This record gives sequence, C-alpha cells and structure tokens, in this order.
Amino acid sequence: MKINSNYLNLEESYLFSTIAKKVNEFQINNKDADIIRLGIGDVTKPLCGAVIDAMKKATDEMGHAETFRGYGPEQGYTFLREKIRDYYSTRNVKLDVKEIFISDGAKSDLGNILDIFSKDNTVLIPDPVYPVYVDTNIMAGRKIIYLDANEENSFLPLPPKDLKVDIIYICSPNNPTGAVYNRSQLKLWVDYANKNNSVILFDAAYESFIDEKDCPHSIFEIDGAKSCAIEFCSFSKIAGFTGTRCGYTVIPMELERDSTKLNSLWLRRQTTKFNGVPYVVQRAAEAVFTQEGKKQIFETINYYKENAKIISDTLNELGIWFTGGKSSPYVWLKCPNNMTSWEFFDYLLSKAHIVGTPGSGFGKNGEGFFRLTAFGDRDNTIEAMKRIKELF
Amino acid sequence: MKINSNYLNLEESYLFSTIAKKVNEFQINNKDADIIRLGIGDVTKPLCGAVIDAMKKATDEMGHAETFRGYGPEQGYTFLREKIRDYYSTRNVKLDVKEIFISDGAKSDLGNILDIFSKDNTVLIPDPVYPVYVDTNIMAGRKIIYLDANEENSFLPLPPKDLKVDIIYICSPNNPTGAVYNRSQLKLWVDYANKNNSVILFDAAYESFIDEKDCPHSIFEIDGAKSCAIEFCSFSKIAGFTGTRCGYTVIPMELERDSTKLNSLWLRRQTTKFNGVPYVVQRAAEAVFTQEGKKQIFETINYYKENAKIISDTLNELGIWFTGGKSSPYVWLKCPNNMTSWEFFDYLLSKAHIVGTPGSGFGKNGEGFFRLTAFGDRDNTIEAMKRIKELF
Repeated sequence: MKINSNYLNLEESYLFSTIAKKVNEFQINNKDADIIRLGIGDVTKPLCGAVIDAMKKATDEMGHAETFRGYGPEQGYTFLREKIRDYYSTRNVKLDVKEIFISDGAKSDLGNILDIFSKDNTVLIPDPVYPVYVDTNIMAGRKIIYLDANEENSFLPLPPKDLKVDIIYICSPNNPTGAVYNRSQLKLWVDYANKNNSVILFDAAYESFIDEKDCPHSIFEIDGAKSCAIEFCSFSKIAGFTGTRCGYTVIPMELERDSTKLNSLWLRRQTTKFNGVPYVVQRAAEAVFTQEGKKQIFETINYYKENAKIISDTLNELGIWFTGGKSSPYVWLKCPNNMTSWEFFDYLLSKAHIVGTPGSGFGKNGEGFFRLTAFGDRDNTIEAMKRIKELF
Repeated sequence: MKINSNYLNLEESYLFSTIAKKVNEFQINNKDADIIRLGIGDVTKPLCGAVIDAMKKATDEMGHAETFRGYGPEQGYTFLREKIRDYYSTRNVKLDVKEIFISDGAKSDLGNILDIFSKDNTVLIPDPVYPVYVDTNIMAGRKIIYLDANEENSFLPLPPKDLKVDIIYICSPNNPTGAVYNRSQLKLWVDYANKNNSVILFDAAYESFIDEKDCPHSIFEIDGAKSCAIEFCSFSKIAGFTGTRCGYTVIPMELERDSTKLNSLWLRRQTTKFNGVPYVVQRAAEAVFTQEGKKQIFETINYYKENAKIISDTLNELGIWFTGGKSSPYVWLKCPNNMTSWEFFDYLLSKAHIVGTPGSGFGKNGEGFFRLTAFGDRDNTIEAMKRIKELF
C-alpha cells in the first residue's frame, strides 16, 4: 500500500493563519483599536428574498410524498440548466442544456476536471494566482509552467511565444488581481489554444461584476472558444451562495481531444463520482434568474461595486498604482514606498487598523502588492479609506 | 494534450436503460397491466418533520445579515460532527470530531478518496458489487482483483489466502445482495488488512437497517479497525437524503501508511477540491439526531423493514433461496427453475407485472440472481407478493 506521494510535494499555506495571528496579537495589545477588515474574500450580504422563498417552497415539497424528490440527475435538473442556457443567450452565446453541468461550486469542478486529462499534460498557470490551480496539479504530479503576471503587463499576461502547453488557466475577472481581459486579449488566448491543441480552463466566478462593455463575461463570446475552452462559474459571488454551494461548468459538444468529446468524459466522471446538488439548492439557484431575483441580486452586486469604487477613487487620488476595482470586487495595489507585502500589511494594521491580504501569498509576482476587497460594510469601507488618506 | 485514456477502458452499463426500455414496451403492448416496481433503489418516503423544520429555520437564517453564513469549514460544521461523534459513542466507538468529515454523500467520497492513494496499489472488489467501486478504479488505471461472492459463501466472501492486496472494498449491509457481515467475519477482514498493510474502504450506507445484534453497524466496533479502515456513511437511506445530499467519512488518526496520516491527506484533498456542504443541509442532517428526528426516522425505516419482511416471508414460504431482507432493504434471490437473471426479469414482468433488477447487471456472479427492494409502497409490496405466490 502506497499513498499518492505527490501530496508530499504540496506546500502548506500559512497566509490566512498568519494574518489571523497578527491581527489577534495586535488587538490584544491595542484593545481600543477599531480594526476594519478589508481582506475578506467571502460575501457578507444575506441571500435575497426571491432565493429564500424558493428554497422554503422546495423544502416544503421535500416534506410531502407527492412532491418529494429522491436522487436527481447528476448533471443537474433541466429547470436550472435551461435558465443558465437562457442567461448565456442574452449575450449571444448559444448553448445546449447538455453542455451545462450543475455542481456544488467552481472550486470542486476546477479541482475534479483534471480527472479527465492525462497526467502527462503540461499546465500553464499565471502567477500570482488562486492557489487551488497549483495545488490540484501538484496532487496529480503534473508539470506546471508559471506565466508572469506583473505591473508591466498590468497583470494580464498574453500567450507565450515559442512555448506549447496543454492546459491553460485563465481567471477573468481575476482573483487576486481584479484585472479583466478584454475581447481582443481573450481572442489571442483562444487562437493560441486552438493552434496548440490546448484546453483553456476559464474561471468566470466573478463575471457578474463586469461592467466594461469590451470585457466578455464568458469565454464563449469569443469566436473559436467552443473548440478549446471549458468555463466554470458559480452562484457564490453572483448571489451570495458561498455557504449554499451551487455552480456550473460548461463543456461545449464541439470540444474534442484524442477524438473524444470532453463533455462525454466529464459526464462519465460526474455520474460515477457525484450525485448531484440538493434539490432545494437548485430551486434556490433557479430563483436567481426570476425578475425579482435579478433585481435583488443587482442591488447587492451594486453595493459591493460601490465599495470597490470608493477604494479605487481613494487610490487614484493618492496616485497609488492598482488593478481591479472596476468590473471586480478586488483591488490589487502596489505597496507604497517600495514596501514588501508583509511590511505594508504591518504598516496598515498598526497605523490605520486596517487588515488586507499580502500579495506575496498568491505567488512570487505578488510580492510588493496587496489585495483589498469590496465585500465589507459600506461605512467601514468609507472609514478605512479616510484613514488611508490621512496616512499618505 | 492527451485525455485520461483510462476512461476509454470503462464499460457502458445498459442495466437500468434496458430495464426502462423493456418495461416501457411491455406497458405499451399491455395498456391495462398494473405494473409494480420493486427494482427501485431510491427512497420514496418524504423527509421527516424535524428535518423539514430545521431546514426552514436555517433558510431563514440565511436571509438575514446577522445570521447569514458564507463559506463554512470544508470538513463540515462542528455542530453536526459532534452529533455524529455522539452517535458512534452509543455503540462504544470513541471518535474525535477531527476524524469525521461531512460530505455531499458516500458516492462522492468513495470516488474521491482514491485521490490520496498511489495508482500502483492493487484493489480487491467483491463480485457482484455496486458499480462505482469498479469504475472509479478503472478511471485511475488501477489493477482490480475480483473476489467471488456466491451462494457457497452466502455472498459474504472472506479474506483470500496467499494473496496480498492494498485496497479492499467492503459494503455491509451489501448492495446489491443485502448480506451482512457478522462480528467474527469482520474481525477476519481487519486482521487481514493489518497484517498486509491494506486499507479497508468500508461502505456503511445501509447501517441503519441492521437489527441483528451480532452484525456491527460500524467497522470501528471491531478491535484493530482504526489502524486499517476508512468508513463511509450517508444520510440517504437513514433519513431519505438521496435528493438532499449529505454523508460523512470517518478516518481515524491512527490510520497511517508510508508514515503519513491518511486523515491529513484527506483533509488536504477536501480543503483543496471541496468547499463543504450547504449550511441548510447540515442543519437538516443535525435534526436527524434530535429526539423527535430519531423517532420519525425510526418509523420510516421500520416501514421499509416491514416491506422487506413481507418479501422475505413470501420467498421463505415458496422455498426460494435468498440473502438480505433482514438488516437490509435489499432481497437478493436465486432465480427459480435455473432461469438466468434476464429470463427471470422477463418472466416476472410478463406473468406478474413486477419489475425487479437482474443480478447479472452487478457482476458475473450476479448471473442467476435477482434483486428486489423494500423501498416501495406497502400495498404494492403486498400485492406483488400475492402475485408471486400465485405464480410459483
């Protein structure tokens, strides 16, 4: 009996535990300090009324034999997949419901999708990055090539010349940098993938924050993407489902490798190792697409967006370089006065009692950068920016 | 770019689609036939009142900022893990909450657990069997050795002599045979695993149907199991959660291979590729352990058990050999008159208008056997047995 020894190559991340420890120590030594947390990556607003009503109605159904639901389809109920298909059609992306898979979230699918690919593929991952992309590939023992995202390319790296890779991760709007690819940049990626027989894993978890017309919400808005891309999305940030767990993955029927439809492989994976998302959760997700649901969700996203604007305006005023803040809940700023990420963390905590996330925790190119998020409370966000203005 | 070519070695199962096709054709040609389905593997009774109330209360919490829950712990909320720990303690199994992982169901965990083991391990799988065990290992390219379960060993095979394997699947009460290992039989398996450095994957999904004193509900009731076994359980059959999705996996801290705790590996797998079970579902599962919940669930399980008894009594009366029916919702019978599984299927459908599941669909040793289940309606079960008595 041997374990999967690739697990021994994983590095432990102490990012959030170190932050918690430092904040805790500071609070103990400064009992009166009113600490504001702008490092938070989770939503704070409750589920909207339309979602709550739908979930309760579905719960009632589960309590009566005539309306009770047992095992559902592993790929998700058609009622929800049809709503997602219609949502895509509003931006002229034509999907078949068979191309849409409901899951318990983008994180699960981004990890599990690797099951259908050979271990021998090489993987291209931007740095800095959401750590799940790296760790899931280390677990499988794949060769990872990092692609530098930095100030020079505004944290939006373009396809490498003279390098052929098999699997490509793109997250746009990006976590942690908030940077968003525009149409012509994504077209370069799609052309690269089609030319090199690569597959793009496109993480669209933050698409609902996009308001720049030239930035696609879906990779499938780009010509040619259906033959080279898989898209992952989630209700977590769109509708506050971080604790409710529902997402979806789109694999076009056109997408084939080794003469095999990736859609069929994923269907086989999911029917074998997954049993679908709770009925009540799928009904809750369906309510996101009702008139009432759309209106309520729009209000919440706008609240977060306004927070992002308050942060961005302050940084602009102070002449601090940053990405994100527009079309994204994340603001990724260059630490002032050439401070390192952790130096700036300590400085901000001690001088302004504000907590953010050191960029170095997301990869080597994150060093010297810092992430603030728009998921906090409005008054706190305003107060934090006031303190930052006083500081610089 | 290459796909995981192991997927091409999977065999398509046409078992349930063939059954559906045959039943459909029969109904079209026999419009008045009152067909009774005893092939059903899903529960039919609704969620109990305590569970419904808890889920609604939790849904209300999700609608207010003060009680809203975002990302929960990947391993599950402590409130639920404590209830499971206490449940185990009622049969003298002492667990730490850190040894319990909440998941979206036993099927997911049984598939995903293989992630932490080397591809080079050999796997021992009884035949006939729940197809997920086989398919998940084929996907990983592992060598599978089949262990014959048959009439001679009452479908309860014991450890092989002169053969060393790494991963062992045991499902007790068994799907599809309904057979249940007793204490001394399980002790032989535990001793074998400890001696050979193997790991037992113990599927306890049907434990709540056990009423024979000598049959353990948990492998951890056996001395020595904590150093060689992982246990998978589910609220699906205990509390009708097949469409609500919640289960749990127990990995003792004592269980080490290659000097590494399997608990730590699984924690790392889950924190990387999973984001926890919906808060509302975990609150619903918690309600299963309240006084009211326990009482309500006991009633439902007894309803199914009474169905199983009605089926067993009929077969005993007719002198038809079978396993299960006691401590299990499944009855696995030997087809009368040396019929093959499909011959008996056709015979039962055409002569008695009863649908069951041909045993040959679960492996080569299933040929000549047939599965009936206790999840149907009481009146239908009685009527079906009346028809079978008239037939033989």
